[in-house]
Amino acid sequence: MSLIKELMNALQILPGVGPKTAQRLTFHLLQKDKSGGQHLAEVLQTAIKNIRECESCRTLTERDVCKICANPSRTPAQLCVVETPADIIHLEQATDFKGRYFVLHGKLSPIDGVGPGELKLNRLVDLLVECDELIIATGSTVEGETTAQYLSHLAEQGGIKATRLAHGVPLGGDLEYIDNSTLAHAFASRTQL
Amino acid sequence: MSLIKELMNALQILPGVGPKTAQRLTFHLLQKDKSGGQHLAEVLQTAIKNIRECESCRTLTERDVCKICANPSRTPAQLCVVETPADIIHLEQATDFKGRYFVLHGKLSPIDGVGPGELKLNRLVDLLVECDELIIATGSTVEGETTAQYLSHLAEQGGIKATRLAHGVPLGGDLEYIDNSTLAHAFASRTQL
Repeated sequence: MSLIKELMNALQILPGVGPKTAQRLTFHLLQKDKSGGQHLAEVLQTAIKNIRECESCRTLTERDVCKICANPSRTPAQLCVVETPADIIHLEQATDFKGRYFVLHGKLSPIDGVGPGELKLNRLVDLLVECDELIIATGSTVEGETTAQYLSHLAEQGGIKATRLAHGVPLGGDLEYIDNSTLAHAFASRTQL
Repeated sequence: MSLIKELMNALQILPGVGPKTAQRLTFHLLQKDKSGGQHLAEVLQTAIKNIRECESCRTLTERDVCKICANPSRTPAQLCVVETPADIIHLEQATDFKGRYFVLHGKLSPIDGVGPGELKLNRLVDLLVECDELIIATGSTVEGETTAQYLSHLAEQGGIKATRLAHGVPLGGDLEYIDNSTLAHAFASRTQL
């Protein structure tokens, strides 16, 4: 197989990249931006070699303990549980949360054989010792809600307050485009002005 | 800058990849497909190091002379001129052309200061010596047509037949969706059944 063909195939591991896009990317990398491609190859290799899970919160990091967990100004009293490391980036950009995180790397899904053991939730239990509030920021899918239910039980057993992200009308969202269940939830949870 | 951030930035050299997609690709590479990522990095590096232009037709290849030019069963009597190496792949898939190619790596565009000198068309002249038919397969843009015009003059001077890809209704295309100039051209060039 020619090297060009090999590169086209290798690029198709990327999500959303099929044969046509792979061909376009290949010629871009080889013709238009060789130095960028070289840099990408190097960074990708270094990242794959060095990035691992934070020993405390399990997000991805090149250190033993990630920046957030190592930051003494962030309180362990508030612990926000998320499904993926990307969720942390999202929350950090959107909020001024000053507590810590815990990454589930998945969600409970009995149907797929994912139970508390598979998610290694015992590591979460250790963190709950220092914690006053467990903020459950899993998604609003069936598995996300199941996981939230389980986590709130866990918090209850430890005598810790459990909270969940609010559901409702997205900001800037027209009521016309909102699905029925969200609208029903937003209506029931209406707040006084 | 963290290594994750660095990888996100490096991925944004890819055409069509913005910050959001770069983040998705990053987590895919670091969480879901480390071995694929490692392979991609290695192939990319090897390709950037080894792939260069074919000494004869100027397509991209890891050899001195590409597979097509080195293939003795492909006749130098028919020479097909294309804008990019990707066009060769496309033509090879679509046709049973048994001649050779020449890659312009661009098109004539006086407005951008791209003349015959910039495209190094003197290398094309050498190939014309062995050639009976020059097939001009540049695109149907203004620059593509200008280039075709110039190339057909060049062929004329050498006493070589110049041909151009046919214009007309795309196969499977409804007349309703075809632009006026294409339709006018197709009408004027109608063929007898």
